[in-house]
Amino acid sequence: MKFCSECAHPVSLQIPADDTRQRFVCGNCGTIHYQNPKMVVGSLPVWERDGEVRVLLCKRAIEPRLGYWTLPAGFMENDETTADAARRETEEEAGANIELHELFSLVNVPHVHQVHLFYRATLLDLDYQAGIESLEVEMFTEAEIPWQDIAFPTVEFTLRAFFSDLKKIKEGSGAFALHTEDIRRRMI
Amino acid sequence: MKFCSECAHPVSLQIPADDTRQRFVCGNCGTIHYQNPKMVVGSLPVWERDGEVRVLLCKRAIEPRLGYWTLPAGFMENDETTADAARRETEEEAGANIELHELFSLVNVPHVHQVHLFYRATLLDLDYQAGIESLEVEMFTEAEIPWQDIAFPTVEFTLRAFFSDLKKIKEGSGAFALHTEDIRRRMI
Repeated sequence: MKFCSECAHPVSLQIPADDTRQRFVCGNCGTIHYQNPKMVVGSLPVWERDGEVRVLLCKRAIEPRLGYWTLPAGFMENDETTADAARRETEEEAGANIELHELFSLVNVPHVHQVHLFYRATLLDLDYQAGIESLEVEMFTEAEIPWQDIAFPTVEFTLRAFFSDLKKIKEGSGAFALHTEDIRRRMI
Repeated sequence: MKFCSECAHPVSLQIPADDTRQRFVCGNCGTIHYQNPKMVVGSLPVWERDGEVRVLLCKRAIEPRLGYWTLPAGFMENDETTADAARRETEEEAGANIELHELFSLVNVPHVHQVHLFYRATLLDLDYQAGIESLEVEMFTEAEIPWQDIAFPTVEFTLRAFFSDLKKIKEGSGAFALHTEDIRRRMI
């Protein structure tokens, strides 16, 4: 940030009165330009037939991590809820019809100023198709997941937590629960 | 937003190529200025002695809702996790020593572009004191809570969910769980 978005005067980094952090402050109109983390919200769409569980992944058509696999997700927009964002991103990136369930994972990625949220979802049919930001959309069993080619650690964390919960549920103990994690290593 | 924060040229609302929403776009350097929801994060500090449960509330010293009671909470900052933010706000607003537990509520407030998160916490001692943004800090049993003077509906939702869970737990059924809600009415 170099200039004030209110008056076009140059901004400088200062600690405002009654604050403890450096902010971009306008030298002319005094506006303090706060910068805050963004939410990335998506879904974990599941298809189960004859006891076989598959999850839907999208191969990214855009940077970062072009060509790597991800759950459908993206930046939450103003005027929507987290569930709205999960549904919209699933529609945009995978053209998938889903029923959204509860929030399944919340992963902090503090060094990139992001919090990633994933909702568990049921895929309602197989009429999915790659959106403009995806090269392919495909379903994978746990064994088929291209673990070496997963785009982001938040997606890997969420997939592993899902299959771990699923194993416990199939063994007769436990239920899906919210999983939280902090990831401080490189995102890409 | 009137001017580009990168080059000081006027911005205008446009739908960029491959997008579906209006964004502030710079007519000179082409920068797209995205605007996204912010997270407000706090804690629900609990003190239990002799079977009596009290929660810690802060009387706001600042607008909006000056003079009304709230849980300690505030805007999440870059470079911190949601749990970091909950601990920092509890320290700043209430000077309270807490042990933070799991995420207890996630409340969307889409019309003000916010998502509010509250963590359940245990108050470790009674050495709390009002910070610069609080007029008073006080503990309340459920019956003592000034329900008519609670600052925000997200705080009221969180407090009611907590005492509802607590009642079930005392009756021998249930456990604390994540509570989610969307609030679309006026915030203040």
